[in-house]
Amino acid sequence: MPNPTAAMLVIGDEILSGRTRDSNMHYLAQEFTRHGIDLQEVRIVSDKREAIVTALNALRHAYDHVVTSGGIGPTHDDITAPCVAEAFGVAISVRDDARAILQARYDRMGTELNEARLRMARIPDGATLIENPVSGAPGFTLGNVHVMAGVPSVFQAMVSSVLPTMTGGRPLLSQSLRIDRGEGDIAGPLGALADRYPDLSIGSYPFQRNGVFGANVVVRGTDGAQVDAAISELATLFPEALQQQA
Amino acid sequence: MPNPTAAMLVIGDEILSGRTRDSNMHYLAQEFTRHGIDLQEVRIVSDKREAIVTALNALRHAYDHVVTSGGIGPTHDDITAPCVAEAFGVAISVRDDARAILQARYDRMGTELNEARLRMARIPDGATLIENPVSGAPGFTLGNVHVMAGVPSVFQAMVSSVLPTMTGGRPLLSQSLRIDRGEGDIAGPLGALADRYPDLSIGSYPFQRNGVFGANVVVRGTDGAQVDAAISELATLFPEALQQQA
Repeated sequence: MPNPTAAMLVIGDEILSGRTRDSNMHYLAQEFTRHGIDLQEVRIVSDKREAIVTALNALRHAYDHVVTSGGIGPTHDDITAPCVAEAFGVAISVRDDARAILQARYDRMGTELNEARLRMARIPDGATLIENPVSGAPGFTLGNVHVMAGVPSVFQAMVSSVLPTMTGGRPLLSQSLRIDRGEGDIAGPLGALADRYPDLSIGSYPFQRNGVFGANVVVRGTDGAQVDAAISELATLFPEALQQQA
Repeated sequence: MPNPTAAMLVIGDEILSGRTRDSNMHYLAQEFTRHGIDLQEVRIVSDKREAIVTALNALRHAYDHVVTSGGIGPTHDDITAPCVAEAFGVAISVRDDARAILQARYDRMGTELNEARLRMARIPDGATLIENPVSGAPGFTLGNVHVMAGVPSVFQAMVSSVLPTMTGGRPLLSQSLRIDRGEGDIAGPLGALADRYPDLSIGSYPFQRNGVFGANVVVRGTDGAQVDAAISELATLFPEALQQQA
């Protein structure tokens, strides 16, 4: 059976403007790879209602899982939750269980659960909450869409609570070799190798370092013996190749 | 007149598997912001033909410009150029001017322009070449799609040669304040401020550092006087706020 597929939707004006670099994508990619879930697409959109709703509907129909990050805080630009409700055509309102989580937290902190903070208890009908051990305000899962915070520590905690509920596949194994030769020198034998191993994904990622051109060749697949065999063939083809941390 | 819009398509198996972090997106976002081009969406897809063609066609119809990165080298997994040709419904073949660039480069290096390297001279009909001062193999522009290499030094050089040919708009200016208070405390006044400045984009980006919750509030717009005015109001509302490098 093929591994489940997934996409990620980053709601990130600050990434599109170049102000910050996204790190959640990299984290999720690594976790999914370990868990045998195939991350096939990432989209980054601005925090505009139409952009979010359109992307959500495209992705949730195309992949087994969709993870979103960002836009579930208390400020005016946090519009992810109502956009998810709109995409699914369901209502959204402050929900008692989410409100109770926030109330308990802010009581402990001696902080008022004001109107802005209450926005974080708005949950689309039919969703289940995702626990947030870091800052209280929950994420939620609706259908195959998992809605998480953008703050990296919170995002990571939410991924940790959701991942065990997702049926994973066979972990994607990878090994890689660094070959300090131009890709043009290795392309022929590499293509022939890829043809001989149709179940593996063999990628060549060129780099330039200190004026030297080289490539990291990465062999990926769920069958460890096949990955080993392909890497051995590669090492024989290119004796100068260096084994890399995969 | 509103600024031109743009999207980026990253062809990046290695990013989706978590092996590497993308840096081209961050670079392009900053360059576009400076140049007054509004980067509205980024998609990252794997190097599968159908995924690339579908994304290309969606993005090139939705935005003024599309920049792609990755997949134009000599190896079997480099399929961006034929995918662009397919998306536009045009033919692709080895072109004399691209071949001459490669021939001159490899002659200088005493390297053979072999069959694999010749793949890098395949250019879709009707495209214009994008110069590659770093490693020779050109990118190309077809319609509103600018096809660039994935190696960061090459990508950046190609952006530098294409950017002057794009009509920019008014640079997007931004200023930001760091406020060491939970977003729930600032959300009310911040929302009111956003309502008073409908032409500005006011974003709140929460962070957690050493157990303290705070937010960077970023005010963006093309009218510097308005940005200044909004930031002044913010600083008055939150006297403890710290001016940040925008």
